[in-house]
Amino acid sequence: MDEVDYRFLCELATQLRVDSVRAAAAAGSGHPTSSMSAAELMAVLLARHLRVDLTDPRDPANDHLVFSKGHASPLLYAMLKASGVIDDEELLTFRGRGSRLQGHPVPSVPLVGVATGSLGFGLPVAVGLALTGRRLDRLPYQVWALCGDGETAEGSMWEAFEFAGQEGLANLTAIIDVNRLGQRGPTRLGWDLAGYARRLGAFGWHTIEIDGHDPGQIDYALSDARATRRRPTAILARTCKGFGVSAVEDREGKHGKPLDDAEQAIAELGGPRRLTVRVTPPTGPGTAYGFAISPGSPPAYEIGERVATRAAFGRALAELANERGEIVALDGEVADSTGLDTFAEAHPERFFECHIAEQQMVAAAVGMQARGWKPYAVSFAAFLTRAYDFVRMAAVSRADLCLVGSHGGVSIGADGPSQMGLEDLAAFRSIHGSTVLYPCDANQTARLVEQAADLEGIRYLRTTRGETPVVYAPDERFPVGGCKILRTGDDATVVAAGITVHEALAAAGPLEEEGISITVVDAYSVKPLGAAELLSAARSTGRVVTVEDHRPEGGLGDAVLAALADAPVPLVKLAVTGMPGSAAPAEQLADAGIDRHAIRRAVRALVRGGS
Amino acid sequence: MDEVDYRFLCELATQLRVDSVRAAAAAGSGHPTSSMSAAELMAVLLARHLRVDLTDPRDPANDHLVFSKGHASPLLYAMLKASGVIDDEELLTFRGRGSRLQGHPVPSVPLVGVATGSLGFGLPVAVGLALTGRRLDRLPYQVWALCGDGETAEGSMWEAFEFAGQEGLANLTAIIDVNRLGQRGPTRLGWDLAGYARRLGAFGWHTIEIDGHDPGQIDYALSDARATRRRPTAILARTCKGFGVSAVEDREGKHGKPLDDAEQAIAELGGPRRLTVRVTPPTGPGTAYGFAISPGSPPAYEIGERVATRAAFGRALAELANERGEIVALDGEVADSTGLDTFAEAHPERFFECHIAEQQMVAAAVGMQARGWKPYAVSFAAFLTRAYDFVRMAAVSRADLCLVGSHGGVSIGADGPSQMGLEDLAAFRSIHGSTVLYPCDANQTARLVEQAADLEGIRYLRTTRGETPVVYAPDERFPVGGCKILRTGDDATVVAAGITVHEALAAAGPLEEEGISITVVDAYSVKPLGAAELLSAARSTGRVVTVEDHRPEGGLGDAVLAALADAPVPLVKLAVTGMPGSAAPAEQLADAGIDRHAIRRAVRALVRGGS
Repeated sequence: MDEVDYRFLCELATQLRVDSVRAAAAAGSGHPTSSMSAAELMAVLLARHLRVDLTDPRDPANDHLVFSKGHASPLLYAMLKASGVIDDEELLTFRGRGSRLQGHPVPSVPLVGVATGSLGFGLPVAVGLALTGRRLDRLPYQVWALCGDGETAEGSMWEAFEFAGQEGLANLTAIIDVNRLGQRGPTRLGWDLAGYARRLGAFGWHTIEIDGHDPGQIDYALSDARATRRRPTAILARTCKGFGVSAVEDREGKHGKPLDDAEQAIAELGGPRRLTVRVTPPTGPGTAYGFAISPGSPPAYEIGERVATRAAFGRALAELANERGEIVALDGEVADSTGLDTFAEAHPERFFECHIAEQQMVAAAVGMQARGWKPYAVSFAAFLTRAYDFVRMAAVSRADLCLVGSHGGVSIGADGPSQMGLEDLAAFRSIHGSTVLYPCDANQTARLVEQAADLEGIRYLRTTRGETPVVYAPDERFPVGGCKILRTGDDATVVAAGITVHEALAAAGPLEEEGISITVVDAYSVKPLGAAELLSAARSTGRVVTVEDHRPEGGLGDAVLAALADAPVPLVKLAVTGMPGSAAPAEQLADAGIDRHAIRRAVRALVRGGS
Repeated sequence: MDEVDYRFLCELATQLRVDSVRAAAAAGSGHPTSSMSAAELMAVLLARHLRVDLTDPRDPANDHLVFSKGHASPLLYAMLKASGVIDDEELLTFRGRGSRLQGHPVPSVPLVGVATGSLGFGLPVAVGLALTGRRLDRLPYQVWALCGDGETAEGSMWEAFEFAGQEGLANLTAIIDVNRLGQRGPTRLGWDLAGYARRLGAFGWHTIEIDGHDPGQIDYALSDARATRRRPTAILARTCKGFGVSAVEDREGKHGKPLDDAEQAIAELGGPRRLTVRVTPPTGPGTAYGFAISPGSPPAYEIGERVATRAAFGRALAELANERGEIVALDGEVADSTGLDTFAEAHPERFFECHIAEQQMVAAAVGMQARGWKPYAVSFAAFLTRAYDFVRMAAVSRADLCLVGSHGGVSIGADGPSQMGLEDLAAFRSIHGSTVLYPCDANQTARLVEQAADLEGIRYLRTTRGETPVVYAPDERFPVGGCKILRTGDDATVVAAGITVHEALAAAGPLEEEGISITVVDAYSVKPLGAAELLSAARSTGRVVTVEDHRPEGGLGDAVLAALADAPVPLVKLAVTGMPGSAAPAEQLADAGIDRHAIRRAVRALVRGGS
């Protein structure tokens, strides 16, 4: 790097710093000091190392940049201005109503593939992107993640460090902005770069310790990172929060607020600059790898056959992936329980073992879908809750991905409550734009797995551990947002889903003998709820019983209540109210009050009491 | 250790192994091979190092043992039998209906303080117990955690390793059963003990690598762990899964199932033994430390004063802690935003900075409450979802703790959706036995913070970022399970909570001018919902509008629908259906359709359409 380049980078960094201060001042909020510490790091990356065609953000050959410290968004927007993507006027719309320059980055802005702002989310997604580059796209793009030092306290960061280190993701660089200060005070390690290096080295990373305000050292480190083989690189950059402005530099209490005197700060930085940078487009091959496809044979089961929906899921996904090369799957080290082993055997190249690290599993899926792949991330329903914040952030990222949770409900039996998904329907229903599906038999599972592939947003499919009889013919169709009327009666409508469909059907006969006839609705599409036929049945019978292997709050019963809200009918909700222990599946259903006998009792009470 | 002792320990280990095989065989399910690998580790711990008075499990001086690998429950129950706590008959009730020997441990059994079974949960709780011993109880008990090797893939484990390493928790020992095999196949590191040692050493732990089947080495390591000062110790024990039975030893595909031929296996192990162990009771001081208390002065605010409920929370907790020495608080490095800084300044000894590690924060709280302290774990509502599985497991553990989530809803304003708690009410309502509180003003906040201290189970309190006017007098009472009728009308009932209470009140006047009178209900107790007066109001007006700064699923609206289910009235639910961007708080409420104008429109449409 010659003297001219060096001076230019110093000036560019100062411009990014000034623009960060200006944007936050215009907004009256934001995180300028967290932006200022990383200005040189990003100036050098932008001007000399990032390979992105800004005229074609979807070029598969583009590098990826993830602001894992999403609160440094002013810096990101200042970079977009410096590279001509936005103008100064737009920069100053930061955090305003309708502006795409939100408080934390969302994918409505070029260079931003995923939303960040929940710390510890960005790096795991960057790992997913690097994994995609290596094993799916098979393209030489580089993934750069700007990380905070404070966020290394998040366990999800260490899931990411471990995954990347073990996979040897040399196409990944974590640039850690060690500015010593978190939101509230000093970080645990302060400026102990060696402490970070020991940790990361032990996790298999190549580490470089630098002065994060020296463009020369940064340039060397970024070159070294790209050139390093077999290992991901972490650049440990010692920086000052609020660098360059004496009123805030390296001071506590200056996090997440605009500078008190922005004008003075800008003057101290030498005033605004008008530098522009032409970001270098990628030169490498621009076509992502495609897997060979072959005709699939959609699984079909005979009515009456006993098949667990978890097994049907695995088979359906494996078959679907024959026809569709973009389908990939991720496991949380339970594929032999979730049914996903069938996929793993059929498509080993598209199967990703994430070990027991559900957050990294979901983040990897988010990275994959950002590159156009169709990921299915699969674990026990109970353990997907470990990644709940990541699912929330995936929705903010407008990510399209499928989550599959097996072992839903008390019907798993003897393993006990820690293994039971009992809050999953509530948790995933409340995710913005989500679809929640809950099949009751193997044919229905297969059809829903197929349809889930082409939906948008977060799709959640819940499967059951035990074997259940096949109820539907193989050619039956199950539109998302539909339901099935399995039996029609006059006295009450029982709305069930998954395992409880079988209990509802079993209750119908004995009730008939008592002189009570029921309609049984299979609400396999919990969100959007298959409302039209369901509501018509509910209103014609005038009474509803909902029954679900889930907590009473936020699940099927609440979905039905909401659908009926404008013209309601009396409804009794059967759900799991107590804390289960160990017992056989049928005993669990009985003890929870959601089996055929409980349904009978509830219908009888409602009909006798209400007529 | 002499030859006799050595032989006894070998025999005891074999007995534990045999009993694990027998228990799983009797149950027809369970994890005998995961138990067999750790039999010597636990035999030596039980016979020579654990200091517990089994006749008085609540003795404060007792050591703590946490089975972080909760699936090795047969081993734990075999230990209970060997120490005379249960008999052989009870051992064989393993996993049966009504047995306290569940598939995964729950606190209904002596020695078990918290439920485990969701991997990566136990060690962080053990860290919380060790922290409690050091900084709260100030007792010399030792905390032993039996960990799986596979679970080290969980990020939460590294939150725990980091926390314990930095705190120098020498009273904590992690015994890592490195049996090389996970559920589905080999772990990432296999038997690379040095790989684990490098990682843990970098995190500040003392490590010892041993043969986990040699009682002599184990005894040395456990002695060394207790004697080590200033650092926690990890014993890295190389073991074989299924040790001692050739049909399963170190073989894949043998996880989580009883042995095919238990009789043959027991014969190979030399048949059942009838050894008993007298576990040594603690000798040290048995009285936990108590903090000095002083008269509190419960905060009181003037009606009309503008105070953010997050600030009122911090002040209320700080005051409450003056009177109550058992109250402690944990921060996720956002105390300056959540209001908790007020507590931190007033009670530094009872304040725990957990940095940005929400899972460890919640787990530490679980550990503290297991020793009788009353923890409040506090972060943004959005970021508490990072610990959702831990909250679920806390409920399975019958834990009593308070979670406080600030920055609920879109009303935070410009920070954008990643920072908004919009799914928290749904998530925490669905937790078994939870209480969900959502105050709208400072006096109400203070009273709810006080009451929350003495409730059972998981209490979740949601606070608001912006300032809101005080509505209630300081002496007003707010029973949990109650609601407040703030205004009475004839035409419709508007049910609000938190920020939307103010919007509902603001809508009432203009509606009155239109000739529409409304009842306004402040549903500060979202779960249990203050149903009686609310329902009476709803039924007398015949129409309900619910309005919440939350997703439509699983929140306030669904709670009201459920309460009305048996005799419903038409209801319109106003909630956040779109994906917010950045904007000012009032703009956000308007854009989400939950402000005073939206309430007016909804009430008007309901009344005009319905009359």
